[in-house]
Amino acid sequence: MFNAENFVENSLKEIRNIVGKHKVISACSGGVDSTVTTALVHKAVGDKLVAVFVDDGLRREGEPEFVVKTLRNLGIRTKFVDAKEEFFAVFKGKTDAEEKRKAFRDKFYKTLGKAAREEQINFIVQGTIKADVIETVKGIKSQHNVLEQIGINPETYGYKILEPLRELFKPDVRKVARELGLPEEISERMPFPGPALSLRVLGEVTPEKVVVVRKATEIVEEETRKLRTFQNFAVLHNDKATGIKKGERVYGNIITVRIVDSEDAVTAKARQVPYEVLMRISERITGEILSVVRCLYDITDKPPATIEFE
Amino acid sequence: MFNAENFVENSLKEIRNIVGKHKVISACSGGVDSTVTTALVHKAVGDKLVAVFVDDGLRREGEPEFVVKTLRNLGIRTKFVDAKEEFFAVFKGKTDAEEKRKAFRDKFYKTLGKAAREEQINFIVQGTIKADVIETVKGIKSQHNVLEQIGINPETYGYKILEPLRELFKPDVRKVARELGLPEEISERMPFPGPALSLRVLGEVTPEKVVVVRKATEIVEEETRKLRTFQNFAVLHNDKATGIKKGERVYGNIITVRIVDSEDAVTAKARQVPYEVLMRISERITGEILSVVRCLYDITDKPPATIEFE
Repeated sequence: MFNAENFVENSLKEIRNIVGKHKVISACSGGVDSTVTTALVHKAVGDKLVAVFVDDGLRREGEPEFVVKTLRNLGIRTKFVDAKEEFFAVFKGKTDAEEKRKAFRDKFYKTLGKAAREEQINFIVQGTIKADVIETVKGIKSQHNVLEQIGINPETYGYKILEPLRELFKPDVRKVARELGLPEEISERMPFPGPALSLRVLGEVTPEKVVVVRKATEIVEEETRKLRTFQNFAVLHNDKATGIKKGERVYGNIITVRIVDSEDAVTAKARQVPYEVLMRISERITGEILSVVRCLYDITDKPPATIEFE
Repeated sequence: MFNAENFVENSLKEIRNIVGKHKVISACSGGVDSTVTTALVHKAVGDKLVAVFVDDGLRREGEPEFVVKTLRNLGIRTKFVDAKEEFFAVFKGKTDAEEKRKAFRDKFYKTLGKAAREEQINFIVQGTIKADVIETVKGIKSQHNVLEQIGINPETYGYKILEPLRELFKPDVRKVARELGLPEEISERMPFPGPALSLRVLGEVTPEKVVVVRKATEIVEEETRKLRTFQNFAVLHNDKATGIKKGERVYGNIITVRIVDSEDAVTAKARQVPYEVLMRISERITGEILSVVRCLYDITDKPPATIEFE
């Protein structure tokens, strides 16, 4: 049985030992993993830590503001990096899922490395958890924060990596969040992938497509708040389909809604959401987003699907 | 109130008047519209009619055999044209929905025109119904059997067109089918588009992709037989998604299942199919088709979607 109190106590000692008198930077996306990591390290080393929020242009509606505010409320020094244009530039012309992940990862580490050099920092803290490690080793996906085991030398980017949660599964991470007294908005926060909405735009990632999937994501989240699912989100297809808007034929966008139950993201079940809710989501998405003519619901468990589409 | 008996009686006279002593050819796909048309004209002119089944390689499992057998059982002279390779050749490199429809239509009329010339025939009978006429005029889709109104001269292809059902809506066509004593497999047959599975393969149509969507279609039809819906089918996306097969990461195919209720195809409702049925379909499709990792269910009414994807 996992004991969050003991875990925090041991981690604090260990982190202090490793970090010593060095300075530490923590990339925080606002997800439960990276926020717990950031708060844990902050508790261990105080102002030797600076948190960095990289705005890659791929975050959900209102998320950049929320994350920065939350971190500052916790008394953590926080640096906001606007890298939106740089990220969209690296996605240009890339349509393959793995190529997109690699482009994201590379730009992410370069951006973070630059921030680390500016702050004269040698350690980077990351919110890697057990499921990320397992899946990357098995080759299911290349998680952007698991480097060594896939043969990427973090020193290439100019720093060392510290991953205090790498032995924990998601439910234990949430226990640590509660133990650290983090707000419920964080401790119960739905998982959100590192490469963010870029995984949810099939084909090339462009600012225009991100606007569409961000709006659809907002609608899905609003309409499913009460369902208490593990994860729920929208995906924008690259494929188009015919539809009718204002009596005219259009060739428009397709959105898939994915809502799953899971303990630890290693396996997952497609939630059997009441049709009343699904139809309302479908009507809102096709009604509020001009370019969308069709809304699909993912009825596949993991396996054989993954939770995300890419 | 539509009276099928009167309709048949008047149509027989009218068809005999128009056809006179000429010979007639009827393109029959096995759908209710074209089979009723064929049977009606056969009743009017007997052996002056020859039915043609064009095997374009885009038909459902077992369909070519079923259609030819059904027509011959009705005593109708039937010609089977194997044009599979020719059709796949015209789809090569075409990814746009409208371009694909046009390519299909052109190849279809050329194939039929060739058969008509071989049989020295001047009249071609077609199963155009009211919904086809309405939708083509409104620009929703270009129905392959509605020519004059969109400015295509049928004589380009070497014959004249006869469309005895063009004033009828689908429910009336079924009444005529029963009036003519056609088997229930025909009179209650689910609508199936002229360009067949080519509309259900997003992106370029290839023999390999048709095999996948044909198998998925068969599974959907088997599992939804008892639902008595207006239409139910599978669509193969051009987009791919990640999944897990035999413990390995794969980048595989996506199938969407579409099941709708409708009176006349002009509007339609996505059927709220019990999850038990959907999950079984999803498990079978991802289990029985190696390349498929993900199964989606279309939750959009018409409008704003159309029934078909293209």
